[in-house]
Parts: sequence; structure tokens; C-alpha cells
Amino acid sequence: MDKHGITMQVLSNLSTQQVPADVAADLVRSANDTLAAAVRRHPDRFAAFAALPTTVPDAAVAELERCVGDLGFVGTMIMGRTEGEFLSAERFDPILSTAARLGVPVYLHPALPTRATSADNYEFGLDPIVAARFATAAWGWHNETGIHFLHLVLSGVFDRHPDLQVILGHWGEMIPWFLYRLDEALPPRATKLERTIGDYVRQNSYYTPAGLFTEPHLRFCVDVLGTERLIYAVDYPFVGNDGALDFLRRADLPEDTKEDIAHRNAERLLGVRV
Amino acid sequence: MDKHGITMQVLSNLSTQQVPADVAADLVRSANDTLAAAVRRHPDRFAAFAALPTTVPDAAVAELERCVGDLGFVGTMIMGRTEGEFLSAERFDPILSTAARLGVPVYLHPALPTRATSADNYEFGLDPIVAARFATAAWGWHNETGIHFLHLVLSGVFDRHPDLQVILGHWGEMIPWFLYRLDEALPPRATKLERTIGDYVRQNSYYTPAGLFTEPHLRFCVDVLGTERLIYAVDYPFVGNDGALDFLRRADLPEDTKEDIAHRNAERLLGVRV
Repeated sequence: MDKHGITMQVLSNLSTQQVPADVAADLVRSANDTLAAAVRRHPDRFAAFAALPTTVPDAAVAELERCVGDLGFVGTMIMGRTEGEFLSAERFDPILSTAARLGVPVYLHPALPTRATSADNYEFGLDPIVAARFATAAWGWHNETGIHFLHLVLSGVFDRHPDLQVILGHWGEMIPWFLYRLDEALPPRATKLERTIGDYVRQNSYYTPAGLFTEPHLRFCVDVLGTERLIYAVDYPFVGNDGALDFLRRADLPEDTKEDIAHRNAERLLGVRV
Repeated sequence: MDKHGITMQVLSNLSTQQVPADVAADLVRSANDTLAAAVRRHPDRFAAFAALPTTVPDAAVAELERCVGDLGFVGTMIMGRTEGEFLSAERFDPILSTAARLGVPVYLHPALPTRATSADNYEFGLDPIVAARFATAAWGWHNETGIHFLHLVLSGVFDRHPDLQVILGHWGEMIPWFLYRLDEALPPRATKLERTIGDYVRQNSYYTPAGLFTEPHLRFCVDVLGTERLIYAVDYPFVGNDGALDFLRRADLPEDTKEDIAHRNAERLLGVRV
């Protein structure tokens, strides 16, 4: 396994998402141009996910087409809800259909729960710093992102767009852990969907460790989801490459599978060559 | 491993909990008397968890003392929030201190998220049946129960009552899966607690499969939490004993560990002899 295999960085600029509709399109276009310039300077090290002005879906479609078609971006990264709504809301469907048509994935990045959900679940007199972490990195981000993906499944997004691929970080957020239960409680005869929830997870999502390098998660995910959709992501600069590489080198997996995880799965999904 | 080892049934009557304060104490007392009569008829097969009128904490304390002291009950089962509040709220502290003093565990049973949380997370135009299952057995119950336990930890309940033990079903709900992340995001220097969240989970909780018999969960929990606090629970009558027994027989664990899981851990915690 070549060290270089997991050192390609997919750039993204989340901070420009979910800005007010009147400035969103211009601001996001400028941010994506900055990413494109970085990729042009180091095309063998960088690729980019497009930021999108999701508050203005028509402009988001145009920007995704520009980023993928003109600038060579390899997907889009979307951070949670837009104005309280999941991407399953009808007004965002053109964004999803465009991603499916262009053959690029949506990386669903964690984001804050809503104010109401935070107040109702993560506060209750806890110290504000503790409550804020509880609602984000410790728990809330990951519950929120798992729920978001499940809304895409349950609202039929993947029946309408069977080629759409979504990337989930943090070992698939909380979904792999509850997949057995999800399939038990929400079979196709209840959901009226074409496939089981497990089918959508295994056929319409990819998952990454996103910097959480723990052996039990790797084993669990390999057992439940297999290795064909595991993409090695380190969440740089929060986590560095060296420890991540050691983790994969030590993993109890065949060398060929490690190559898939380190770069081949990403190459196939993103159309890059690392 | 003796088949009888996992066929003791701990009776509980959840439906009498969270009833209005003016009738709660009488109704719960009557329900517990019914359980006590069943245990007296089959003392080698049944034990009981007390229902408690949590809407009236003083009466709940008296009922827990009566059930454990006079009727020989082995714990209490509490179903989620009471009037929107977690058991970490100050008014419930006498219930928790009584359980700790009597040396009996609190089984924290899943319950519905609040109306606000359901509307904000599990609905959004989904079919009402799908939304209801999403908010309960498929996901919401388990997130809610995990959050509930974490509120006990984060509010310092286990620093005040270090002997208190809480039982979590469904392989510890969503907590084992995110324990690494919880410890990373909420270390003692942030929480101001005496121990890490992992310490509280490993020292103040027991966990059960509650009818979810999947090998990857068993492996993950054994790796992350060990086997000393795993209690085999089948969630009868929803899941029967026979398949559950086969699962444990087939498990890749030493025979002695299987005996611990099948009955010794429960005997130690509950003071029963199966």
C-alpha cells in the first residue's frame, strides 16, 4: 500500500453553504473558484467538492453543473439541513437529480440539530459548553446526519434517482449500528419502497471513518456493510495522515482489500487517480 | 450452559407509568401487587421490576421501598422521560438515591421522543406509519434512551450516587457505537465530572441485547465494553428463548463467559438465583 494512496485531499468549503439567498450564489461561486485554483496548482494532490447555494436550488443546480462540467470537481459536500429542511424536500430534488445525472456523489456533512431539537434533547440545565458538544461532535451531529440520510431513503429519493450516491462520514454515522433494527421495523411493505433500507445503504452510500480510527468500528462495518464502499478519509487537518496510515496497515484485512479502502474505492466513485 | 439459565423472566408493567399524578400512586401500587402475586406463584421462574409513579417522586420513593423491601422486587423499570424531563432533573433525585441505597438497578426502557423532537426529526411529510416507526423502534426510541442515560452522566448523577446501576437494552442503545467519540468530545476537563464517560458506562451501566441477536453487535460490545456487564435478555414475548439460546451457544466466546452472560451477571446484579 503506497503511502501516497491515502494522501489525496478533497477540498471543500462548508462555510459558504446555507448563506442567505440574496448573496448565496455569488459567494459560493467565488468560494468554488478559490478551490478550483488550488486544484489547478496541485492537480495530483487535490480534488474538490463543490459548495452549493442550497437556499436557491436553481442556482445550486447551475453551480453544480459549472463545478463538475467546467472546473472538474468530483462531487458536492452539503452540510445538513437548509432552512430547517432535509434534502428530501421537493424543492431540492433538482440538486439531487443533477448529481445523479452528472455521476458525482453528495457528501452529507454533519451539521447542528435545529434549535428546537437542541433545546429538547441536549440542554436541560447542562453547562453551555457541555450542551454544545453534546449537540454536535459528541452525539447530535451524528444523529442528525443519520436521520438526514434516512429521510432521503424513506422519501423515495433513491427510487427516483437510483444512481445517486451519498457519502457518510464517521463510519456511516449511527446507521450501520441500527441497520438491523431499521430493516426489522421498516421493511418495504411498510415503507412502500422498492428495496430494503439495507439495500439503499449498501447500494447508494459510501462511508468513511472521517478520522475515527478504532478497530471495533472497522470490524463492525466490514461485517455489516462490506469493504467495497469504505473510503479512507482522515478529516485533515483535524486528524493527520500518519496515524491513519498506521491504523490501516495494522488492520486485520487482506492487502488487496486495504488497497481498495486506501484508494481504489475512491478512485472508482470520484473518477480520480491517486 | 443450562437452558434454564436464560429463562428467568423479570416482569414489568410499563403501561402504569407516567399516569396523571392524582391517580398514579394508587394505580401503580395495584399493578405492582399483581406482579408480586405472579412472582409468588412461580418464584423460580419470575422476578419483578417495580413500576413507579414518577410523576409524584415522593410516592415513587415510597413505592420503590415497598416493592424492594416488602415484595422482594429486584429493581425498577422506568420508561423514558416524565412530563418531558429526564431522570437527571433534580426532582427525581430521591428516586435515584433510593435505588442506589437499596442496591437495585434502574432499567431505562425506551420511550417516545417528545412531540417537538418527533415533528422536527421524524416526520416531514413521511407516511404517518413510517414516521411513527422511525420515531420509535427503528431509531427514535434508541436515540432517546441513549440521550437519557447521557443526561444522567453529564448532570453528575453517578458522582452523587456512585453505586447506582442503570440497565440499557438493545446493546446499550446507541452509546457503545459513539463512546469513543463521546470520550473524545467530552473529557472530564470539559464535563467537570470525576470520571470519563466511558468509565460511567463501564462502571454504572449494564447492557442487554433485548432481542437483537446479531453477531457484529456482540463482537463490538465485547471489544468495547467487555462481558462483565452483558446480561442476556430476550424481550419476551416479542422474541422467544430458543433462537436466543442458539445465538449464545454459537457465539465465539469461552464457555465460562457464556455462563456469565447467560445468568451469572444477572444473578450478581439482581440478587436472583436462576
